[in-house]
Amino acid sequence: MAGHLEPKVFHDEVNVAPETVRQYAADEHVDEGQNWVEGNAFDPSLFAELVGRSTAKLKSFISDQSVRGLRLIDPTVLARRAKELATPVVDGLPHLDRFEAILNLFLETGIPVYSTGYMGRQFSGVLPLAGVVDFVSSLVNQPCAFYEAAQLPNVAERLMAEEFGGLIGWPAGRFAMLTTSGGSLANLTAMLAARNDKFPRFWPEGTAGLVGCRPAVAVGAEAHYCVRRAVGVLGVGETNIVRLPGDDRGRICPARAAEELDAAAGRGLEVFCLVASAGTTSLGACDPLDELADLAAARRMWFHVDGAHGASLLVSDKLRSRLKGIERADSFVWDAHKLLFVPGVCTLLFYKDASKARRAFRQEASYVFDTEPTVYNALDTADETVECTKRPMIMPLWVAWALHGRGLFARKIEYLCRLARRAYEALCLEPDFEPIHEPEMNILCFRYAHAPAGPPDFQVAIRDRIRERGAFFISKVDVAGRPALRVVFMNHRADVGHFRSLLSEVRAVAAELASGWPRPAPPGA
Amino acid sequence: MAGHLEPKVFHDEVNVAPETVRQYAADEHVDEGQNWVEGNAFDPSLFAELVGRSTAKLKSFISDQSVRGLRLIDPTVLARRAKELATPVVDGLPHLDRFEAILNLFLETGIPVYSTGYMGRQFSGVLPLAGVVDFVSSLVNQPCAFYEAAQLPNVAERLMAEEFGGLIGWPAGRFAMLTTSGGSLANLTAMLAARNDKFPRFWPEGTAGLVGCRPAVAVGAEAHYCVRRAVGVLGVGETNIVRLPGDDRGRICPARAAEELDAAAGRGLEVFCLVASAGTTSLGACDPLDELADLAAARRMWFHVDGAHGASLLVSDKLRSRLKGIERADSFVWDAHKLLFVPGVCTLLFYKDASKARRAFRQEASYVFDTEPTVYNALDTADETVECTKRPMIMPLWVAWALHGRGLFARKIEYLCRLARRAYEALCLEPDFEPIHEPEMNILCFRYAHAPAGPPDFQVAIRDRIRERGAFFISKVDVAGRPALRVVFMNHRADVGHFRSLLSEVRAVAAELASGWPRPAPPGA
Repeated sequence: MAGHLEPKVFHDEVNVAPETVRQYAADEHVDEGQNWVEGNAFDPSLFAELVGRSTAKLKSFISDQSVRGLRLIDPTVLARRAKELATPVVDGLPHLDRFEAILNLFLETGIPVYSTGYMGRQFSGVLPLAGVVDFVSSLVNQPCAFYEAAQLPNVAERLMAEEFGGLIGWPAGRFAMLTTSGGSLANLTAMLAARNDKFPRFWPEGTAGLVGCRPAVAVGAEAHYCVRRAVGVLGVGETNIVRLPGDDRGRICPARAAEELDAAAGRGLEVFCLVASAGTTSLGACDPLDELADLAAARRMWFHVDGAHGASLLVSDKLRSRLKGIERADSFVWDAHKLLFVPGVCTLLFYKDASKARRAFRQEASYVFDTEPTVYNALDTADETVECTKRPMIMPLWVAWALHGRGLFARKIEYLCRLARRAYEALCLEPDFEPIHEPEMNILCFRYAHAPAGPPDFQVAIRDRIRERGAFFISKVDVAGRPALRVVFMNHRADVGHFRSLLSEVRAVAAELASGWPRPAPPGA
Repeated sequence: MAGHLEPKVFHDEVNVAPETVRQYAADEHVDEGQNWVEGNAFDPSLFAELVGRSTAKLKSFISDQSVRGLRLIDPTVLARRAKELATPVVDGLPHLDRFEAILNLFLETGIPVYSTGYMGRQFSGVLPLAGVVDFVSSLVNQPCAFYEAAQLPNVAERLMAEEFGGLIGWPAGRFAMLTTSGGSLANLTAMLAARNDKFPRFWPEGTAGLVGCRPAVAVGAEAHYCVRRAVGVLGVGETNIVRLPGDDRGRICPARAAEELDAAAGRGLEVFCLVASAGTTSLGACDPLDELADLAAARRMWFHVDGAHGASLLVSDKLRSRLKGIERADSFVWDAHKLLFVPGVCTLLFYKDASKARRAFRQEASYVFDTEPTVYNALDTADETVECTKRPMIMPLWVAWALHGRGLFARKIEYLCRLARRAYEALCLEPDFEPIHEPEMNILCFRYAHAPAGPPDFQVAIRDRIRERGAFFISKVDVAGRPALRVVFMNHRADVGHFRSLLSEVRAVAAELASGWPRPAPPGA
């Protein structure tokens, strides 16, 4: 392995004068660290200039309401361009032109979340206020799993917890709400807490503590892939997933679920956790939470709800009742970065019983965990999340909530759910489209009905061609094993007119594709 | 449970005119969504105003080099103040005064990463350029586990991977580098890949697949707590951790480790993974990586290196050789948000063999995973990380690297390591201080030697009192079971003079405390 760790010369040493390098070589100037290290990198006027240029671009970016989709570039081509931009030219920092060129590329090649042609993913345009608060977070750099390091974010988490807990009638102080990095991690964490609660020997002893015992988890057919994955991660074993049968939208059917659970018990499985979805990724469907809560209670299972997408409906007084039963969950997950206008990621994990939050993990670390409890470390949460260091992700949400009020969020969600309903109604009037479901939230799936004979991936071909043409961005999904088109209404600036334009686009694309369908096999296939 | 989900009136409906509410009540204006929903919240001039006010504050924040520590506030007091600021006053948005007051509170109550009195945690001041790029990320909101949604971040990850892989001689295309949300999650992910690689039945079958088999993990005494925790999460069982004996700095001793591993095998344990540290959290010590790589190879164990803190030394041509052996690791972790000037979190997870990265997880999800590989989805990484959605955390690092050059990062790290060395030398000249170790990186632990008789937590009392006085911020740590003071040099603006001032502060505080030592027991204890 010799040679790898030999010194190399900097190929990019553009902002250190030769005499400085000599000083450094003499290893004598430790007390002159600041200027020697940073050059002009921390110059406040450079900072202001960078902000000014970025803001100008972002202003037009968030205001641009043209109907456009994704500009998809071959990664090799994009990498070449990025590499060029990353190659220094010795013309003095801050290389502002290169900076601007990089920003342009960044803005142009992402999902166009502010465009009315954007209907493809569960990300949305960010509230400017939330973006600005996140900017401040980036620079003040407070890791928020410890109160000491990030006091306001920790307090803000408590305030938002009270606010959200109040929406479902949870009494302050009895439940816990944590922020964590994404819904997948939150689901994993909750299921870990469930595992440790029901099988206390799993954590200390692992498989050796479970001889003769087969822990299992029950999930609906439409659960997010991360739920099934968590079962594999936690050592429960993917084959010990009990799939609960559902209706035509994949919603768990409680009566049939009970039968399935009986059968599982008969096979020797000990189902310790039932995972329901409030807003499936495919169709935005919501499992019958109240009935499933009964089922879980009767069988002493931990009841977990993956509300990553749908829990945002709690914010609306009109829509909240659709999630009836979520208040009975032992734990549930809510991605604020999906429907609440905040930058990704900001996931909220709730436990009905605060004391269970600490069951997910056990540890000791003298440099972080104080032995004596104080008013300060009482708010620490590093013993409740996977992360030891995490971003103060609550700040954009809390500040936006504080300054804009709940109404802004509620109106967005109500509008998008109504838009999905209107789009569905419009779709039903079109004989060449096949609606797949009545939308429960802001997701609508359908098929182009006049597909030519041939393989079922005509819908996928439509989706890909639409993406290529660049006016709209939608996604695809398999429903009951067959591909379909999927529209996620995340942009409150889109309306039914935009949806109708999308349908015209689908028709045009379908006509274009039909003539050459089925496609010839790719060369070499 | 009735009643929880009943409608409530908005208590904070400040930016919707009554006639708009009536329109909404009539449920008729879905096509007027935009204005009805957003009010002035997306107004570009409001955005510019928010940016302007934030930037003014941040400019002074990053320029303020006064020697100050932490302003620690009772959470109850802070919560009261935060609640006041979050209470709307009906005076028209944007409530700019409340916004500014919230910002002030945010800036004042965090760890003072730009202050020269800040020596307490592994977070550092952020490069303004990196902060600005992160700001852009917040608004363009590109979830980066899929190429399609975040093209430039995905390409930038590949470019940074080549850059960093090149530093240790890894050939492009053979290894994998992923970004993930924090070092704890990265260690967990790597250990999961190891588990699945060595015990392929663990994922599908869980405990049932492991009857008669006791998987185990070997770690040093000073491994970060998240490593031991991961063993519990993954179902391996905390009691199946084989603790490898170390020297006085906690560095694993390879010869004694071999004996310990033999003994573990004798007890029936199958040690599948050896975890070493490159930069322990307590002392910044580095395990003998090259020798441990031999040990792991001889016993066919997965060799994982937690370089969350120390891997940044790879950036420096002068310091890289201290990590010799890391290039032989099957996987290693590197927190760019620790020593590379970027906002938290930005963790890099490396696998020497790219094909092993995908062994950590298995899944299918039609709405995200395309069945046919294309040039686009070849860059997707959601099948390699816990996150399905993650922030494009590479962007601040890549842009800063592209525009400032590697030299800036290397100088910072070299400076901080030399500063720790100089501080150690200064400490050795002071008879009333007890140096605990020669610093290997930028962490220095010591004790005040003239502690009065009584319980050993005099050092902790010193640390707490220093924090209270507010000029310096340091941490505490247990070394060989006894509390010590811990200084982490993260701020390149600090110098030996600041460290000497800290020592004076310690002396003053010690004198103050000594008179009342040991402290009376708290009431009720």
